[in-house]
Parts: sequence; structure tokens; C-alpha cells
Amino acid sequence: MILVLAGGVGAARFLKGLVQVAPPADIVTVVNTGDDTELHGLSISPDIDTVTYTLADAIDPTRGWGLRDETWRAMEALARFEDVRPKHSHAAPRWFNLGDQDLATHFYRTARLREGATLAEVTDEIRRAFEVTVQILPMSNDVVRTHVHLEKETVTFQEYFVKLKHNVAVTGVDFEGATTASFIDLSLIENAARIIIAPSNPIVSIGPMRALAGIDNALSQVRDKVVAISPIVAGTALKGPADRMLVELGHEPTVVGVARLYKEICGTLVIDQQDAHLASDVEKTGMRCVVTDTIMSRPGVSMALAQCALDAVDIQGGK
Amino acid sequence: MILVLAGGVGAARFLKGLVQVAPPADIVTVVNTGDDTELHGLSISPDIDTVTYTLADAIDPTRGWGLRDETWRAMEALARFEDVRPKHSHAAPRWFNLGDQDLATHFYRTARLREGATLAEVTDEIRRAFEVTVQILPMSNDVVRTHVHLEKETVTFQEYFVKLKHNVAVTGVDFEGATTASFIDLSLIENAARIIIAPSNPIVSIGPMRALAGIDNALSQVRDKVVAISPIVAGTALKGPADRMLVELGHEPTVVGVARLYKEICGTLVIDQQDAHLASDVEKTGMRCVVTDTIMSRPGVSMALAQCALDAVDIQGGK
Repeated sequence: MILVLAGGVGAARFLKGLVQVAPPADIVTVVNTGDDTELHGLSISPDIDTVTYTLADAIDPTRGWGLRDETWRAMEALARFEDVRPKHSHAAPRWFNLGDQDLATHFYRTARLREGATLAEVTDEIRRAFEVTVQILPMSNDVVRTHVHLEKETVTFQEYFVKLKHNVAVTGVDFEGATTASFIDLSLIENAARIIIAPSNPIVSIGPMRALAGIDNALSQVRDKVVAISPIVAGTALKGPADRMLVELGHEPTVVGVARLYKEICGTLVIDQQDAHLASDVEKTGMRCVVTDTIMSRPGVSMALAQCALDAVDIQGGK
Repeated sequence: MILVLAGGVGAARFLKGLVQVAPPADIVTVVNTGDDTELHGLSISPDIDTVTYTLADAIDPTRGWGLRDETWRAMEALARFEDVRPKHSHAAPRWFNLGDQDLATHFYRTARLREGATLAEVTDEIRRAFEVTVQILPMSNDVVRTHVHLEKETVTFQEYFVKLKHNVAVTGVDFEGATTASFIDLSLIENAARIIIAPSNPIVSIGPMRALAGIDNALSQVRDKVVAISPIVAGTALKGPADRMLVELGHEPTVVGVARLYKEICGTLVIDQQDAHLASDVEKTGMRCVVTDTIMSRPGVSMALAQCALDAVDIQGGK
């Protein structure tokens, strides 16, 4: 069994490559839920949906999120409420786009959670509805919410990421509920033949999982079978705010900075060709370093990257 | 001020005529909320929306409910969850159609209620969003839910009306929450120059209001200024199950049966030409009876009917 710790878009693209080189039925992915949110009364799990839709080939390939052939009639119709909404109300938000077809997923999730189903059960039902073979698990059945501290206020992750377009300075992050929430299944870490930390934001995608009790310790016990793919290439994040967030929170926005964040829980870091000159610096942190093409602009790259990650742990296992 | 006690489609069509013959700013309508429901986590108020959309000329004229030029992408996308839904789950219901644009209204209502707004506040905001001048009020800010007792089970009103297409025998109805809920504003009854009970189902549209403390007593105090329009014409309901429901619950499915239900709270009953031969029987119940054309198949009829209802109370006031 191959365990993949996943955020959203980057992880989804990586998984799409992985299913080309490993049997989908052998893959389990545990997905960040720290950026889950509730809007319009609906329970929304953006990273889980991105992973599910991508693996189902249902994702919109241009946006990288949401369903293809989508329409936006409900969102458009929300506009009429903007002028009647009281000043301090947050109702009818239009900064978080929900496509008409996508809404059905949130309707189903919301209704099932209200019926008492766990998020893992609902996630699995949605996975099956989209005919995805890879097992998709939320990082926890408990509610964990990533809060982003800005200079003058604290906002939810989605407010930071979508509403503010991550174009603001971050002074800290915290994961509400993480101290009492349980990781979905610590035995997965013990039982996996290989564990891959997808090219996701180390702070706000992988960070929420690591905030759960026991997971860092469990990973450190099996560090040799854990491989991470750097989401930072040549000092910048391919997508999202990982680079500036690393700087703002006192880390180095390079593969070396990523290595320092992961070295306790992960034996190998896969970095991009463009960062080959930093490989020895990565190894100085105590991690093995593998250099390959990590920019998943084409499906072929995702596949080769996935194979590289698998091979990296095979080498590891052979040591 | 003219006060109109309203259910859904019939009341909405009547109000559409009334605004042609009386200043919309002088009209207040109190709408049934006993058939409100919650689906997909959304708070849905079907009668309020039908009244609002109709007065806004936004209603679909063929269906009589929902918005015109509507699409159904979210509903269609729910289909994929039918096969993965556990047997005892009610998630992803497709029997209650919600159009994509209509969803925005439910999103707004749900979000505002969650923020602590009252249903009256939200209803008024939605009314203003649709640029309706008539004041629209829910019958109560408290939750009242109409339950329909069938031979072997009890269902919600919407399950009876939409899912079962009101094609089942009713053994009783009750209004959960009605004993503790408050009518929205009893002073409206005292202050209104005229009160019109719209051509709505006496049992499940007007019945939920009458189940609230004080309203029957308040209406009976001003009985002479109250006029009802019979929803029954020639022994049948023009829309919905009022006729068979009257029979099943032991009432006569005629204008005389309607008169017996209203005679304590209402001085005048407006009946259709087709029932002219029953006018004297209606008057035997103690109500005045006015005969006119009540089948609102054309806007002109709604207008004339509204004028007739106003005149009926004027005569009354002049007595």
C-alpha cells in the first residue's frame, strides 16, 4: 500500500501521475481538511474535492478546481442579495465560486453529515459516485480549521486564499481543533510500504495533518520509507502562496527550507532540476535528495515524477 | 392597510391581482411557513418564495413555482449520488426540485438565519432584492412544521405534497411547534382596514396560522372586516389537494364546507359563479356570500376578484 499525504491541486496532479505507475487499488491518500469551510449552510471540503475530481477526470483542467463544463447560475443569482444584505452580514458571499454541478457534491456531503455520517464515510461515498479507485480519506473525522493570522485580523484559510487572493502578509497560522482531533488512522503510517508527501504547501496543506497528535512521531518512526516532493522550485511556489508564506513565517523559501521542515519525518526529498545545485545543501539537513523534473505541466511529467518518488523509497528500503 | 393571509400559488395569483387595484405599499401579506423545509442543509420557504417571485414577475408562469428561465444543473448532478447513498439515507433527494437560480435565495436565507436574523428580517431582505413593494411576512419567526398523517406513516408537508404528489389518503394533520410559536404580529389584525383570506387550502395553508395562539380570537373580534375567497370551486380544488383533504378530514368539499371552517373568523365568503346555487347555504352558516368569477386563469380575473374582495368588505363596513 502506498500512502500519499495530500493537499489540493499539486497533490491531485501528482496522484494523477501515480495511478499510471502503481495500481490505483494499492493507493490510499489522506487529504488535508484544514481548509474545509461552511458557506450558505453547505459543508465544503475543497482539497478532497480537488483530489476526487482530478482522479475522476472530472476536474476543469484550466482552473484546476471544480468540475468541467460547469455553469455558475446560482453564484450569479446571488448578486441580487448584495444590496439588501445588512452591513455586517457575510451572507451571499460571491468570492468563493461554487459551480452549479459542484453544488450537488456539497449538498450530498452536507446532508450526509447532518444524518450523522462521518466525513470519511461521505468522502468514500463521493469517491465511489465519481468512480475513483484510489482510496480517499480526510485527515480527520473531527473538525480542524486553519486560521491565518494577518497583521490586523485573523481569517479562515479560504478567506486568505480565495477572498484575499493570498496577497497579504501572514504573521502566523493555527489549526483550530487540532489538539483534540484524531488523525484518521495512524496504522496507515505503520502499514504503508511507502509514504509520499505530495508537492503541497508544507505549512497549510501538510501542516494541519502534522498538528494532529501522533502523526509526526509515527512518521519519524518510519522515516526511511517517507519521501516528500518539494512544492518549491527555484525559490517560488508553482501555485499558491507557499513561497511567501515560508518567508513570512521565518523559513527559507527554497528546497533547503522545505528540507528543514520535513527532515524529522521524511528520509528523502525530491527536488526539481532547477534546484540541482542545492542538492548537497538538502543532504546536509540529513535527508537524501533526488533530483528530477517536478513541474507537472504535462501528464507525462506527473507520471515520471510519481515513478521517481516510488523508486526513491525503493532505494531507501534497500539501504 | 390591507392584510392578506396567504398560502402559495393561489394566494400569489390573487395578490398579483390585488396590486392592480390597491396601492402595493398599503398591502401586507402574512404567509404560511408550515410547509417550510430543510433539504441539503438549506432553509427553504416555498410559500414565501412563491408569493415573492410572483409579485416580482420572476415566477415561472407555467409551473407556478420557481424562477423563470431556470436551469437544473445542480439537481441533475445529484443523480450520481443515488447509487452510493446508504439505504436509510435521505441525502441527495431529487423529488424536490430546486432550480440553479432559485438556490441563491435558499443560500441567502440559510446564511442569514445562521447569522441570527429572524425569518421576517430575511424575508424582507429577499423581498427587497426582488424589488417587491408589498410587505411580505412569515406567519411566525418560530419554526412550525406541518405534518401529514397517512394511514401507515407521518410525513412532512413537502413529502406529502411533492414526493407523494398528494395522491394518498390523509388521516390527520398537525402543526409541530404551533403551540409555542407566536403569530408574527397580532396588531396587524386589529389595525388592518380589511383582511383577506386568500384562496388557499384552509387546512394546510391557512390552518397552520390558525393553529397559532390568539389569531382565531383576534380575527373573530374583527370578523366583519374579514373576507375569504373559496379555494373550492364546484366541489374541486383548482390546484392541490384541498378537495380530497376536506373529505378525508370529515369536511364537505364545497363552498359550504369552506364556510363552516371560516364562519367564526370571517364575515364574508367569495364564491365562484359555478357555486351560485350554494350561496344561500353559505349564508345559512352565518356568513355573507358574494358570487363572482374566481378562477384566476387570466390576470384580468385576478384583478376583478381582488376588487370584488375589497368591495365585499366595504359593503360590510357600511352596514
